[in-house]
Amino acid sequence: MIAQTPKPPYYAVIFSSIRTSEDDNTYAEMAELMINLAQKQEGFLGAEIARDSIGITVSYWKDLQSIKQWKNHYQHQIAQRKGQNQWYKSYKTRIAKVEQDYSFRK
Amino acid sequence: MIAQTPKPPYYAVIFSSIRTSEDDNTYAEMAELMINLAQKQEGFLGAEIARDSIGITVSYWKDLQSIKQWKNHYQHQIAQRKGQNQWYKSYKTRIAKVEQDYSFRK
Repeated sequence: MIAQTPKPPYYAVIFSSIRTSEDDNTYAEMAELMINLAQKQEGFLGAEIARDSIGITVSYWKDLQSIKQWKNHYQHQIAQRKGQNQWYKSYKTRIAKVEQDYSFRK
Repeated sequence: MIAQTPKPPYYAVIFSSIRTSEDDNTYAEMAELMINLAQKQEGFLGAEIARDSIGITVSYWKDLQSIKQWKNHYQHQIAQRKGQNQWYKSYKTRIAKVEQDYSFRK
C-alpha cells in the first residue's frame, strides 16, 4: 500500500538490502515485529516495503529526531545486530528530506 | 543491486506504484527502456528497483535540475502517459534530498 503521508517537508529513510542465503522464519517474524513497533513510535508517518532480488523499505518520519529515536530503540537495536550477524549480506540506509511529492490515482 | 552513490548531499526520487491487473509485456519492455535511458542522462547516479504487491523504484540524481530534465524527457513523457492510461492504478512520487547515508557489507 502506498503510504498516506502529509504535505512535505517530512523525512524518508530508504533502507536497501541484500539478504544472505540463510532463509529462516525468524527474519519474517522480526520484520513484522519491527514494522508494528515502528508504527507506535512518535513521528512515524508510514512505510512502504517491496522485495525481490533487492529489498527496499522506505519509512517516513516527521523529523530527524524521531528517526534517531527509532534507530536507538532497544528492540530495534537487537534487530539491527541480528541483521548484521545473520540476515543481510549488505545494506545501505539513506536519510532524506522529502521536499515535494505528487500522486496519481485512477 | 544496491546503488553506489557518492557522498551526500544528492537527490532521491522515490516512485511507489500499484499496477493495474492488465498484464502485458509492454510494461516490462518500457520499464527496461526507461532505466537504460535514465542511465544516460546528465546527473543520474544510480537506481534500485523492487516489486511485489507494491513497486518501489528509487533513482538517485545529482540535483533538482537533472530530475526535472529527466521528468520532461520526451520518451519518458510518453512512458508517463502510458503509465497513467494503462499500467498504474495509483502511484506517488517523492523528491527528497539525501542528507546522510551509511552502509554495511559482510
